[in-house]
Parts: sequence; structure tokens; C-alpha cells
Amino acid sequence: MQLEEIIAKIQPLDETAMRSARVRQDVLTKPRGSLGRLEELSIQLAGMTANPFPIVERKAVIVMAADHGVALEGVSAYPAEVTPQMVLNFLRGGAAINVLARQAGARVIVVDMGVAANISDESGKLISRKIGMGTANLAKGPAMTREQAQESIQTGIEVAQAEIARGVDILATGDMGIGNTTASAAIACALMNQTPENIAGRGTGVDDNGLKRKIGVIARSLEMNQPNRKDALDVLAKVGGFEIGGLAGVILAAAANRKPIVIDGFISTTAAMIAAALAPAARDYMIAAHLSQERGHKLMLEWLGLNPLLDMNLRLGEGTGAALAFHLIEASTLILREMATFDEAGVSDKD
Amino acid sequence: MQLEEIIAKIQPLDETAMRSARVRQDVLTKPRGSLGRLEELSIQLAGMTANPFPIVERKAVIVMAADHGVALEGVSAYPAEVTPQMVLNFLRGGAAINVLARQAGARVIVVDMGVAANISDESGKLISRKIGMGTANLAKGPAMTREQAQESIQTGIEVAQAEIARGVDILATGDMGIGNTTASAAIACALMNQTPENIAGRGTGVDDNGLKRKIGVIARSLEMNQPNRKDALDVLAKVGGFEIGGLAGVILAAAANRKPIVIDGFISTTAAMIAAALAPAARDYMIAAHLSQERGHKLMLEWLGLNPLLDMNLRLGEGTGAALAFHLIEASTLILREMATFDEAGVSDKD
Repeated sequence: MQLEEIIAKIQPLDETAMRSARVRQDVLTKPRGSLGRLEELSIQLAGMTANPFPIVERKAVIVMAADHGVALEGVSAYPAEVTPQMVLNFLRGGAAINVLARQAGARVIVVDMGVAANISDESGKLISRKIGMGTANLAKGPAMTREQAQESIQTGIEVAQAEIARGVDILATGDMGIGNTTASAAIACALMNQTPENIAGRGTGVDDNGLKRKIGVIARSLEMNQPNRKDALDVLAKVGGFEIGGLAGVILAAAANRKPIVIDGFISTTAAMIAAALAPAARDYMIAAHLSQERGHKLMLEWLGLNPLLDMNLRLGEGTGAALAFHLIEASTLILREMATFDEAGVSDKD
Repeated sequence: MQLEEIIAKIQPLDETAMRSARVRQDVLTKPRGSLGRLEELSIQLAGMTANPFPIVERKAVIVMAADHGVALEGVSAYPAEVTPQMVLNFLRGGAAINVLARQAGARVIVVDMGVAANISDESGKLISRKIGMGTANLAKGPAMTREQAQESIQTGIEVAQAEIARGVDILATGDMGIGNTTASAAIACALMNQTPENIAGRGTGVDDNGLKRKIGVIARSLEMNQPNRKDALDVLAKVGGFEIGGLAGVILAAAANRKPIVIDGFISTTAAMIAAALAPAARDYMIAAHLSQERGHKLMLEWLGLNPLLDMNLRLGEGTGAALAFHLIEASTLILREMATFDEAGVSDKD
């Protein structure tokens, strides 16, 4: 399905299912509202799935990896070779996202959106959809062409549609790519008209000099590329990344298919911003997993109107925060389905 | 084991195990520190359990129920008959804590510490350890005798010791008792030398008048009973509750046996405050599950030096916040045990 069709397919939340879920929450054996955000979440999930008893049992994290030409500018604490190395780590099950997804009962889908190396995958599990061998250096020109930006989103849509066809109830986003906090910060600055100082953070852990250099690179890139903030595809092309475009596609496809989409941290949030800029209605299907330690994340979530579930000082990406949030999201649906009502339990209601 | 022996048995965190866990976190395939609080938690758990690879697989929530004479003062939105009704709901598996504990793979242990009704338990699962048929009305005199306060703590120690003997890795506290936010607020005011206005909240949901009445009742009780804040047993006896004393005992026994103890919300936190006042070393074994919606909870956690894991606007009790926190706590241990190191995965470390 093409981008325009996907966007046209996104429906508002189902008010009837939400009303039913709200009525149900109010007759369960607890003071009304006493489960706070769990109650709100369950009602929101009812609206997303058009089901008064939403189910989020079959879970998947789509981890998209790509390289970034801007890594040459010394904006990361790690060398670019780490991107393919970590992809192999994902495929062998040794990375943090593998551990946390396993705990949450979620599958991990690893997609090569443009790693700058040929990955010899012995597991047969890698989805290889390279848009290019890494982006161009956004400090010296556009990161990619407009066609590549479109192709990356289209690829994300296709990957998500395939998972949805296999029967997934809830999706989450994850990322890997040395240099991608620089691209993400540049996207956020462009879309929000913010300064790099307010958005860029230490990523994998650059020191003060590294952070200064990173802020300078972002400022130069925005100055030189002049991304048009009214045109999300232009922003993605000029200062984005292949995995970010891919994740934006995943988010749009989830929304179009009434599947809740859990947004991980800083990089995933810029993908969500691209998705929301293309299709504002997609926001209703987003659940922000956590508040990242990365500087601008709070402003970005506010721009999206999202309130994160967790605040654990994470800054890893890969979908790790989203995998943790799965437990809370599923808890909200179990409350709705499994708790007894005042009548069933013979418990006296409020006077 | 008697209270004095239990207190004497509490050891500081094991520094060697903590050092090993820290070293391990630093060689796992992620930027150092990028899993934030999960890393800190894993190190703390190593110290508690004296195991560089802590295990928190076998979990139990000890839910203690009791009635409160102060309920007669109209301080709750629900009638006192709800306490035994909810105990039956726990035993039948229909309450929120049953749902969330099931999800977390935790057993629910239900203890009658002093419900003011004879509970006919068909399940055979209720642990009946009544200290009395509810406390006396703390607005008119002491809630219980000093002997009853000691007995409630002792009972909690015994219940926890029995669970530990069965082989539990981690315990959590939960409570049920109409009127118990009033007793809890009074305890917190006494121990922290705070005003009821800064501590008391709406509990199960009283309106403005109810809250005003509740604050007045607490103020009168403190004025009349004059609990000695340097003597935690006196505070518990004058303005406490049987389930609160019991939970304080559970916490002390967990600490004495090097078992992590997850503190639920407002009521459980006052039990933790009693435990910490009796044995400051017990604090090291406490994990604060969440920040409750109840007014004074933040101040109380600060007094204990605890930083809550979740902030979900919960105000139900029963151990529900603790059950949610189990997922995060276990996640931290799985990271330590299951992630690959840089060497194992062939991933380049930071330059």
C-alpha cells in the first residue's frame, strides 16, 4: 500500500469502544480512577483497537538499523563499525533488546535499512532492505534524496504490514545506528524550529567537546540544507536517516491498521514526529514508552502531545524502553478483562 | 525469631557482589550507564542478595488486611464492610492485585491481621492472624496497646519467614483496610513531625468535606495521643493499624534474610517508615515501587531516601504498584545475566 493510501486509512479512535471500556473500569472492584494511568491506557487501547476489551498479547519490536555519513564528523563516542556488529548481536540474541523483548514475550524483527557494510546473516532472520550504504554526511549536504526518503517510509510500511498480516496485536519501534542521535536532533530542531542547544544530548556518551562539536554540526547542517519544516519528507531527506524514515513508515502502518504503536526513545520519537507531520491522526495510536535521558526528548514528546509511561534514565534505544512499557500496557488490558465487578464479587460500592 | 534478633541480623549491602555487578554492567554491549535505573537496580539487588547475578524469579506479594476504628468518623468514601468483602475477592482472584500478580508471575499471600468480621474462607488460602477485631478509634484514644503493636510486627515477621522458608526470591507489600490512609497519614505526621494538611489525601476518594474531616481527625488524634516520634512502637500503637504493623514486620524479616522488599504505595510506605525507624539498615533492602497519587507520599519517600520506580497516578494499594514494579526489577537482573559482553559479541568498545 502506498503512503497516501496508508495515511487516508487512519481512522479516529473508536468512541463506542472507549465508552464501553470506561463504563467497565467504573464497575470493577476498586475506587473509580484509583488505577490512574492504567485505566486511561486501557480506554485509549480500546479506542485504538475498536475493542472494549483490547488485546495486546502478540507483540513485536521492529528494530531498524542504518548508518549515518555524519559519523565521520566525530559526533559519536563509538566507531561506525558498531552498527553492523550490533545488528549481528541482535540476530544472535545477545543485545539488551533481545533480553527485554524475551521477558515481555515480544518478537524482535531486525531490519537493515542501510547499514554501510554487507552483513553476513547466518540466522536467516535479518530483513535486508537497504536504501543505501548509509546516508550521506548531513554536515556537507542532504543526507539522502527525496526519493530515498519516500522509499525508506514505504519500506517501513511494508515491513509493518507483513508483521500485521502475521497477526501481531501491538508493535514497538527500535533503532540502531551510530550517529543517529545527531540526525534525530537535526530533525527535531527542523520540525520544532528549535536550537540544537535545546535538543542535542550526549547520545552514546560524548564528552563536553564532543557535544559542542555535535551541536555545531547540527547547526551547520540546518543552515546549509534549509529543511522545509512544513514538508516532513524534505526534513527527512535533508537531515534524517534511513532507519528513521523506516520507523515513520512502521508507525503510519500501525495506525492505519488500528494497532497500538509503542514509541521507544529519542530516535523513535523523531520518527513519530515525521509520521505525525505527515498524518496528524497517527498520534492517537502512539504510546510513548519512556522519557529518555537525551536532552530534547521532553520537548519532543510535548510537541507530539504524548506523556511517557516510564522515566528510568534510559538512553540506549533499540526499543529497550518500549519493551519495558509492554508490561504496563498489557497490565492495563488485563485489568479490564480479568478483574471482578462490584456485583460479581459482592463488594459494596461507594456510598 | 524475635524482633530484636531480626533487627540484629540485618546486614549492610554486600560490596563485593555490587562491585562485580558494576564491572559486568560496564562490559555488556551497550554504552556504559545507558540503561540508567535498570543498571543501578541490578547493582543494588546484587548487594541485597550478596549475589553478583541476583535472581528475583520466585515472587510473592503479602497483602495484609485489617479494620480501623477510625472508619466510624466518616474518613472513607467506602463503608467498613468492604474490608472483608475485598479479602474474599482476593481469595477468589478477582481483585486488581490478583490480576497484576498473575501477570508478574507472583503469588498473592492474603493475611487477616484484624478484619472486624469473621471471614469464612472456602479457599483455605487465608492466613488468619487477627490481632483484634479492628483497631480502636484513634480519634478517641490509642488505636491499640503497645503489646498489640509488638504482636502485629511479630506476626509479620513470622508470615514473611514462612514464605522465605518456602523459597521466595523477592517479596512485596500490599494492604487492605477501610480507614487505613487516615492511620497511615497519622503515622507519617508523627514520625516526620509534619502537619496533616501536607500528608493526608483523598484515600479511596473522599470529597472536599471528607478531606477536611479527615485532616481534623488526624490532628485531633495526634494532639490527644501524643505519639512519641522517637519510639516507632509508640507511634504504631497510638495511631497505627494491625496491617501496618504486620507489613513493618514483613519488611524487617525480608531485610534480615537479604531478600529485596518492594514497597507498594502510601500505606506500605508508612510500614516501611516504622521498619526504618526500628532498624535504619532495613532501608537498603527497600525498593519503592511507585509514587502514589496520595498527597504526602513524595515527602515520605524522601524521608526514607527512596526514589520510586513508577509514577502512574495509582492510589489503590493492595500491592498493585509493587506488582507492576516486579517487571522492571526482574528486567534489571535479566540484563545482567543474559546480555552478551563486548568480547563475546565482537562489538567494538568506546574509543
